[in-house]
Amino acid sequence: MTAKPHVLFDPALDLELRREVDVSPQLVWRAWTEPELLMKWFTPAPWRTTACELDLRPGGRFRTRMEGPEGEVHDSTGCVLALVPGSYLLFTDALGPGFRPLGSGFMTASVEITPTDGGTLYVARAVHKDAEDKARHEAMGFHQGWSTAFDQLVAMVRSL
Amino acid sequence: MTAKPHVLFDPALDLELRREVDVSPQLVWRAWTEPELLMKWFTPAPWRTTACELDLRPGGRFRTRMEGPEGEVHDSTGCVLALVPGSYLLFTDALGPGFRPLGSGFMTASVEITPTDGGTLYVARAVHKDAEDKARHEAMGFHQGWSTAFDQLVAMVRSL
Repeated sequence: MTAKPHVLFDPALDLELRREVDVSPQLVWRAWTEPELLMKWFTPAPWRTTACELDLRPGGRFRTRMEGPEGEVHDSTGCVLALVPGSYLLFTDALGPGFRPLGSGFMTASVEITPTDGGTLYVARAVHKDAEDKARHEAMGFHQGWSTAFDQLVAMVRSL
Repeated sequence: MTAKPHVLFDPALDLELRREVDVSPQLVWRAWTEPELLMKWFTPAPWRTTACELDLRPGGRFRTRMEGPEGEVHDSTGCVLALVPGSYLLFTDALGPGFRPLGSGFMTASVEITPTDGGTLYVARAVHKDAEDKARHEAMGFHQGWSTAFDQLVAMVRSL
């Protein structure tokens, strides 16, 4: 795939984090797509990402396992829908590996990485079924959580 | 997209119709992807397909409305996941247009159209969440239904 697919974004249903940073697009892409790097930043502390599998092709497995300070475990396996190497990744938890339906689905998420003069424009989006799921995601801490995770990503790539 | 995506097929969970026919791959592709043609064969009689919208790109809308002899209506909107023009179409009812999660999902379906010496090898597959959904689909009449619909497709394209 060399072009972004047709993804709809509706501010009434969906959420977005938009950040500009002075790190290279290449490093942001690596942080998202190399599991050993993703595990270092993906979950706001004190949660940790303790496993990650990413088969970087349409239909490929995207699994993350997150563990909380009280022993909580969120182990989630979704599906890569599309990608443009270096700049765009789309995945969902409505399908499992090989596009197999899971019978549920909370979000489809996209990560868009665009070069700027000084670094990277980073746009991460979560697309939901309805306004209720959007509100639920906000209440779960979307803005703070995705922003803090991205801060961790930036700090991590600076250390590479 | 120029290559088929990574789709898993598990005989314990999934269903397949495989047919060889002496009509051209081009006509089979047209019958599947031109809504006015699809409406002529998609539903085994006495059911009818009374509406179809197909936006033939990843993320595009795939809607079909079927009506039964007693006034039953099944109106379903899903999402195109991938395609190779002329030979491969993948779609799901787990996502709506633009890859938006629907919160449910019964199947991901693929249609594969391969040229043979005398015509076309047609392979249509339904990929399910689990063996229970496979059994439900069989009980709904998958084999008879998809086979009869394909007979209608062949008869229709012969008349073009």
